[in-house]
Amino acid sequence: MSTTEEFNGWVGHDKSSVNGTMKWESFTPRPFTDSDVDIKITHCGVCATDVHMLRSGWGATLYPCVVGHEIVGTAVRVGANVKHVKVGDRVGAGAQGDSCRKPDCAECADGNENFCAGMITTYGMEWPGTTERGYGGYADFHRAVGNFTFKIPDGLDSVDAAPMLCAGITVYSPLKRNGCGPGKRVGIVGVGGLGHFGLLWAKAMGAKKIVAISRSSTKKADAEKMGATGFIATGEEKDWETTYARTLDLIVSTVSSHDLPLSGYLSLLAPHGQFIQIGSPEDELPRFSAFHLMNKGAKLGGSCIGPPWEINEMLEFAAKNKIKGWTTTRLMEEANKVIVEQDDGKARYRYVLVNR
Amino acid sequence: MSTTEEFNGWVGHDKSSVNGTMKWESFTPRPFTDSDVDIKITHCGVCATDVHMLRSGWGATLYPCVVGHEIVGTAVRVGANVKHVKVGDRVGAGAQGDSCRKPDCAECADGNENFCAGMITTYGMEWPGTTERGYGGYADFHRAVGNFTFKIPDGLDSVDAAPMLCAGITVYSPLKRNGCGPGKRVGIVGVGGLGHFGLLWAKAMGAKKIVAISRSSTKKADAEKMGATGFIATGEEKDWETTYARTLDLIVSTVSSHDLPLSGYLSLLAPHGQFIQIGSPEDELPRFSAFHLMNKGAKLGGSCIGPPWEINEMLEFAAKNKIKGWTTTRLMEEANKVIVEQDDGKARYRYVLVNR
Repeated sequence: MSTTEEFNGWVGHDKSSVNGTMKWESFTPRPFTDSDVDIKITHCGVCATDVHMLRSGWGATLYPCVVGHEIVGTAVRVGANVKHVKVGDRVGAGAQGDSCRKPDCAECADGNENFCAGMITTYGMEWPGTTERGYGGYADFHRAVGNFTFKIPDGLDSVDAAPMLCAGITVYSPLKRNGCGPGKRVGIVGVGGLGHFGLLWAKAMGAKKIVAISRSSTKKADAEKMGATGFIATGEEKDWETTYARTLDLIVSTVSSHDLPLSGYLSLLAPHGQFIQIGSPEDELPRFSAFHLMNKGAKLGGSCIGPPWEINEMLEFAAKNKIKGWTTTRLMEEANKVIVEQDDGKARYRYVLVNR
Repeated sequence: MSTTEEFNGWVGHDKSSVNGTMKWESFTPRPFTDSDVDIKITHCGVCATDVHMLRSGWGATLYPCVVGHEIVGTAVRVGANVKHVKVGDRVGAGAQGDSCRKPDCAECADGNENFCAGMITTYGMEWPGTTERGYGGYADFHRAVGNFTFKIPDGLDSVDAAPMLCAGITVYSPLKRNGCGPGKRVGIVGVGGLGHFGLLWAKAMGAKKIVAISRSSTKKADAEKMGATGFIATGEEKDWETTYARTLDLIVSTVSSHDLPLSGYLSLLAPHGQFIQIGSPEDELPRFSAFHLMNKGAKLGGSCIGPPWEINEMLEFAAKNKIKGWTTTRLMEEANKVIVEQDDGKARYRYVLVNR
């Protein structure tokens, strides 16, 4: 089986496409190279980024645009330089389309491809020096770069693997790198597509205490099923900043609102605690006093997806620990309806589009 | 030799004392306990905090107040519970007067006394539950808590040891804990009392690259003598944020202005880089985009002095590496004149008051 040079997908032509006016059309992918893999898509998760991109929320999007970067399917064409995948393998592709791959790039050399200054997203950007660009997974086929194509382990269902390729790794990486595990007290801000993975991972990593932090308590029961041992409703509990002061070693913030109560969150950190922002605010963070960090030797950091080696590690971890995200499967035909529901905050907690 | 229950020192009675109107008077120290050490002061460094406290810059100061917390002298009375010091030893005391010492305090138990929520400064605070308070080192004697009294190693002159007890440890701790050493590219923001120690420590720790960052280039020649291998004058070099983007692994910011160009500094960080604030701004930090941290897995942290074990480590490191701060000695009689010069930014780079 081989791919043609015409793929078909849900094409957004302008920012109104976020209202459910994407068109199912054929499009021409960038030319196939020996470093590429073509994937016949079976599953594609729906990420908040898809909404931001369709509406040009982070700056002007390059239309026509096909979104979707939590892609799982079957490798149907494999470039000669790609050694870890063969035709017929079940594979995935995530949010990163490529890195610069230059010999003198320390990030590419050191396994930090996600922080490479020449990082290219799976869709939404042109390949440097070209007018070629990527198209995402709301489609029948996807052309992926081999370095950013992952074999899906046996024992991990495609519907579970798909949302891990962006949402999953985005939370897994900062938890793992900042010591989530036995003895640690971990907070997850936001119980949504990202946050629910945070609770699942923290539980599987063996954290001693897992606190879900949300404005309201509407998701409390769900959070507890996911692994939360505690819950803070910041919009309902008076004086939560002082009641729970100095009780958490690590907080991962998945929310993207820029008016988050950052000073309050920082007050929850124990000495040497770390607060890692992974949600992507469209505006700058609020001001806060440096004493929140200085008086405790605390840190405020950021993290963004993860490099290929870590995505592989996460997939193995998920298979071994039988982690399943809370997903709702929807037919690919329904993408327009689903993107509107995603934008309305209806996901509980991840939509996954499925090709028949 | 023994101390009386009356000490003499430069007493500030109100905020005008910052203008050089401290009075040399006798005062009554808190009662001596078996955990205390009385020090006959020979040297006391002059810290920017002394200025802030005299003028009530961080909130209303408790007057009468004797400032000075970079104290070196001779132990003249040693409480029965203090085992590591004997009468006649050369000892020092720094910015931390005491910690809570409660059995259930994780910070006191784990060698993080400087982050103990019950931390008491050497002067300026009442001991919890009492009206007793500490008086600082612009005086003839100082009553210190034994746990926060340090033996000065042979080979380290008192005039060199004194400013290390606050300024030195404040910079040593974040450099050491965040990987300053061979192969590391380090930036020090501000070339002053703190910053000049940053350059000296970074050189002695073997950093590969040491960049002094200041608004103007007036201190460039000095910085290079202290160990800087590079210099960025942010007020003089156009586009410094982009010219030097991603070139530093660790930046320690010693400045206390709250309108610091924080986004620019963060742009200098390499992937996984860390920016540690140790200067104490009187207002909140400026807003910045979370993407500065997210796109590089970078962190913004804070640090505040250091615990006793680390102060001892630093003093040994200084003695072994023959580190000498750039100090100007002045007679204790001149304290009023010196505090005005300190406030005018004339220190190059640390005044040390000396008792005859």
